[in-house]
Amino acid sequence: MDIKRLASQYKTELLDNVLPFWMEHSQDKKYGGYFTCLLRNGEIYDTDKFVWLQARQVWMFAKLFNEVEKRNEWLEMAVSGAEFLRKYGHDGKLNWYFSVTREGKPLTQPYNIFSYAFAAMAFGQLSLATGSKEYSGIAKNTVNIILSKLNNPKGQWNKAFPGTRNLKNFSLPMILCNLSLELEKLMDKTTVERLMTDCIHEVMEVFYRPESGLMVENVSEDGKLSDSFEGRLLNPGHALEAMWFIMDLGEHLKQPELIYKANDIALHMLDTGWDKEYGGIFYFLDRMGYPPQQLEWDQKLWWVHMESLVAMIKGYNLTRQEENLQWFQKIHHYTWEHFKDNEYREWFGYLNRKGEVLLPLKGGKWKGCFHVPRGLYQCWRGLERLSG
Amino acid sequence: MDIKRLASQYKTELLDNVLPFWMEHSQDKKYGGYFTCLLRNGEIYDTDKFVWLQARQVWMFAKLFNEVEKRNEWLEMAVSGAEFLRKYGHDGKLNWYFSVTREGKPLTQPYNIFSYAFAAMAFGQLSLATGSKEYSGIAKNTVNIILSKLNNPKGQWNKAFPGTRNLKNFSLPMILCNLSLELEKLMDKTTVERLMTDCIHEVMEVFYRPESGLMVENVSEDGKLSDSFEGRLLNPGHALEAMWFIMDLGEHLKQPELIYKANDIALHMLDTGWDKEYGGIFYFLDRMGYPPQQLEWDQKLWWVHMESLVAMIKGYNLTRQEENLQWFQKIHHYTWEHFKDNEYREWFGYLNRKGEVLLPLKGGKWKGCFHVPRGLYQCWRGLERLSG
Repeated sequence: MDIKRLASQYKTELLDNVLPFWMEHSQDKKYGGYFTCLLRNGEIYDTDKFVWLQARQVWMFAKLFNEVEKRNEWLEMAVSGAEFLRKYGHDGKLNWYFSVTREGKPLTQPYNIFSYAFAAMAFGQLSLATGSKEYSGIAKNTVNIILSKLNNPKGQWNKAFPGTRNLKNFSLPMILCNLSLELEKLMDKTTVERLMTDCIHEVMEVFYRPESGLMVENVSEDGKLSDSFEGRLLNPGHALEAMWFIMDLGEHLKQPELIYKANDIALHMLDTGWDKEYGGIFYFLDRMGYPPQQLEWDQKLWWVHMESLVAMIKGYNLTRQEENLQWFQKIHHYTWEHFKDNEYREWFGYLNRKGEVLLPLKGGKWKGCFHVPRGLYQCWRGLERLSG
Repeated sequence: MDIKRLASQYKTELLDNVLPFWMEHSQDKKYGGYFTCLLRNGEIYDTDKFVWLQARQVWMFAKLFNEVEKRNEWLEMAVSGAEFLRKYGHDGKLNWYFSVTREGKPLTQPYNIFSYAFAAMAFGQLSLATGSKEYSGIAKNTVNIILSKLNNPKGQWNKAFPGTRNLKNFSLPMILCNLSLELEKLMDKTTVERLMTDCIHEVMEVFYRPESGLMVENVSEDGKLSDSFEGRLLNPGHALEAMWFIMDLGEHLKQPELIYKANDIALHMLDTGWDKEYGGIFYFLDRMGYPPQQLEWDQKLWWVHMESLVAMIKGYNLTRQEENLQWFQKIHHYTWEHFKDNEYREWFGYLNRKGEVLLPLKGGKWKGCFHVPRGLYQCWRGLERLSG
């Protein structure tokens, strides 16, 4: 494995291919914010704005500005989205809508906690770039709202009948692992430390099940396994993404045993999630081998593969286990062969089980300027670190 | 086409294969009601009870008892589900939960209007079999609740922000077409007539778009096309199912022009929905040819094909258009080759685009004892009518 050549491959793909796609096609110069529903060649096919994807794109460009290069065009890109979100993304009290029209009129109620989480990350990261107290205030206040909603994140839109089978979902502690590191410079030390301790506990001691070595998507409120569709659900990509957040936390907190444990779980989830027949990582599985309720269970999604690449290279940097490198090469090969579009810029998002393109889009309601560029950036940095 | 042989093929499959599967595997003799999450061989893999599927199974067995044969086992089967639903399916005020546990504890709030619609159909059909005034009362009162919810069927669980893009969905008028015929004997004449007129108008003059010949899934509140994910959505199976409801209404109301129009739309939707490359009917399409947001868009679902068979044979009986018979044969061939399981009873539900089994289940959260037996029954009767 030529590490230097690989590092440069990821860097070039990010800077010369993927970012220019979003710079060129996603900017809404009339209303601010971004178009994310883009066909293979970048043509816009829908103009609705999904708050979570808007916020992720703000975060991405702010992050690149902060960590790669002080390019004005990246800062302007981030600010355009942030201003749109500040004005139209919430109800005036930082309750973040799920989606709004191109012009900014609310379309979908603020039922989704991830709109809040990514808004906090966006304004937090951008405040580091601009020094804006307004932006850091939005980030901090949004985090406080998230913390106040931990017990019932869906609020009135929660369809579960209370008391019969109270489940908690992996997504929230997982994303808080990411958020706690992101917002360290903005929040007070006690809050951040408590947040880190709590979410590491939830992820590694509640959703991780040592008896099976699996990370499950839902457990009962008291931390037990649930024999139900939700309780049997596995999402390998989700688990792998969480494990690199945990490795980052482990490095930050200087807890090597946490890093090793996270890496072992990542390797096991990959082994569980890998499609031995056609290659690639399944989207959903049932931990008891039953049919999942998700009809898209066998599809191969871009983000799952990007997050796995990041987990493997980060794990190798931190643990030097040979298995990490073998998996990295295997997923690298699959990912570049199937997700990269050799005719147009940016990558495909959705493949069928056999690796054929299922939807010829570059962005949509769920795919924006996030997992591909963040993954390329993380792999580039990871490979660079490895090469010395 | 040997019509008599075909009629007997559908009848035999219903009586000797599909119904015995549900009789044998789905009855919960301890708590009443039915298991619907059944593996290929009938083994139970989940015990949750989905109110909509429970009600559909009650309806199915009551219908067979009323129209095919007075078999006690069918009546007992229907009553077992109805008693479970009467006791545990609702909140005491006929607000029908979406799902309950095996024992009958509520799991999912009554957010889904189809739980109500199928409960009304179940208790209505069963009251004709038993003469129970309690059952007919439940049916009538549930219809009244449905009618009171027409403007906002999802109630507090509606995530659309009011006023920005108020859409109405095809499912409700479509199912009311079915319900209005089902409940004719139970409701007063004026209500039924108004219901029929209203839902025929909605389906044939609002959701049907003459400029494209397509039936769309969502339109704006004032009846206009909407250029949005929801507004571009096509569901050919849905449209075909609705068209045979309309043909039934047309026959009942002695409106031949309504029948001809419905049959023409059905033929056009089939032509639009048929996968010219691999055969079978797509689950979802975008009317402008853009990528649908549903990742399962290209899958081939059992109910879509059953409903299309019914629409084609009914349309042929009523209009004698040669095209109907050609389509019937084409879908018949695809359906029996791909959905019928030659090793175990009942049919597969979910195939990938190429017609390979995607989930090896016979029942689940969405597939119960309904579309296969109802479709077989309708085709059997339709072919019998044709042959005699």
